[in-house]
Amino acid sequence: MKIVTSTQNPAVRALRELGQAKARAQRGLFLAEGVKLCAEALRDAQVETVLCDEARAGEFSTLLAACGDVLLAPAHIVASACQTQTPQGIVASVRMPAPLALAEPPAALLALDGVQDPGNVGTMLRTAEAAGFGGALLSESCADAFAPKTVRATMGSIYRLPIRRGSLAAALETLREKGYAVIVGELGGEPFYPAVRALDGPLVLVVGSEGRGVCDAVRALATLRVALPMRGRAESLNAAVAAGIMMYGLMERPARPGADAAARG
Amino acid sequence: MKIVTSTQNPAVRALRELGQAKARAQRGLFLAEGVKLCAEALRDAQVETVLCDEARAGEFSTLLAACGDVLLAPAHIVASACQTQTPQGIVASVRMPAPLALAEPPAALLALDGVQDPGNVGTMLRTAEAAGFGGALLSESCADAFAPKTVRATMGSIYRLPIRRGSLAAALETLREKGYAVIVGELGGEPFYPAVRALDGPLVLVVGSEGRGVCDAVRALATLRVALPMRGRAESLNAAVAAGIMMYGLMERPARPGADAAARG
Repeated sequence: MKIVTSTQNPAVRALRELGQAKARAQRGLFLAEGVKLCAEALRDAQVETVLCDEARAGEFSTLLAACGDVLLAPAHIVASACQTQTPQGIVASVRMPAPLALAEPPAALLALDGVQDPGNVGTMLRTAEAAGFGGALLSESCADAFAPKTVRATMGSIYRLPIRRGSLAAALETLREKGYAVIVGELGGEPFYPAVRALDGPLVLVVGSEGRGVCDAVRALATLRVALPMRGRAESLNAAVAAGIMMYGLMERPARPGADAAARG
Repeated sequence: MKIVTSTQNPAVRALRELGQAKARAQRGLFLAEGVKLCAEALRDAQVETVLCDEARAGEFSTLLAACGDVLLAPAHIVASACQTQTPQGIVASVRMPAPLALAEPPAALLALDGVQDPGNVGTMLRTAEAAGFGGALLSESCADAFAPKTVRATMGSIYRLPIRRGSLAAALETLREKGYAVIVGELGGEPFYPAVRALDGPLVLVVGSEGRGVCDAVRALATLRVALPMRGRAESLNAAVAAGIMMYGLMERPARPGADAAARG
């Protein structure tokens, strides 16, 4: 462990710079802030540096023992490297996991088209892991999956769910050639539940932004366009809620062989 | 229409005061901010006063023609009555709808226990209406359903979904006596999908806060405790997402007679 005494220490500056997308992309690193995200990073990812409030090192001792490069510093120096309003006394730089490989894609994928709110992107990635989706595709117009706000909203799923950022249309074409059902959620689509009961085989669920839905190029690649039932006079759902309902609706659909057994397991 | 020239005009002050819970409770009114919420208030609720940016009165003319008491004012005066950071030029005071009557409750109810984030409460009420739930019970420890942030997150469902704030334990006891299944969502509960397939008859879904779950008194009244399947290493879901998945999972469960027809309708 090293003691750091200045907010201008090169290691502290290197952490702070990870608040910026450009530095993250150049260095292939991102920030994990707080105990939960740092602990899961040490378990599920590759941690480069941990910076910890020296007054709370005892509290984090198990965690720190698992890490090679630990820096201790007064609280204000730790806070200077953090992006959160209420820093939790510990922050780490974490190596970005390998991107999702489209050569052998998992059987269920989530694709996000133009979802710009980092909290929504993170929440959807968190839900995707929990629902059993094997990875996520993000259009260039989505919020950065490795931005601090997104990372926090994933609650650790960012370490485990392989993602790929780039042209959605190109990726969806590849998946269609591999026999994937391309399911686009949109208002006015076919009723979701009866439509997905008939599905079999691998699938990708495409979710657009709450305001604009999916873009035309992506929409044209749909093999199925679906809408959740809307009762009362409700016109739509929160985008992250709708994505969650559809992801679980797909993974737990009764027609899917073995879905009952998986749910019971 | 009247022209208002001061932020201290009594009607403008009366609107501004509705940012406070005490004033809302005393007067039985709450704020609707922005075009969508004002338009839906005029359609689905009882509007008292509308305050509109005089420079945009033409833009809102159809809306304003439907309302009796309209005040026009410069943008800064309208903004002074609003709680949003980016006021949309129109704000209204709306009468609170009649509370949910427990004497003849609807067949599907949502109950929130200690959900403190107004955005989460609002999102859950919005989802409840869309899923076909007939009303919501809120514990005293929940965020105020009529707070501006909550109202915005409901996207208008606040006008249509009857709610009742008060002791959850007392309400759940009443519902149990009426034959309701009291379904509590909690980590470690029975697997959700197989458990709810066996349900028949009226139900109330109880959702707790993301951090603490439901309180002991409420938990003791459960007839069923359920957990959504968690795959990967995900430990939990966002509270509003989990509530949405469970609400749609309940309303669309295959065992429920007529669920297919309703989904197709």
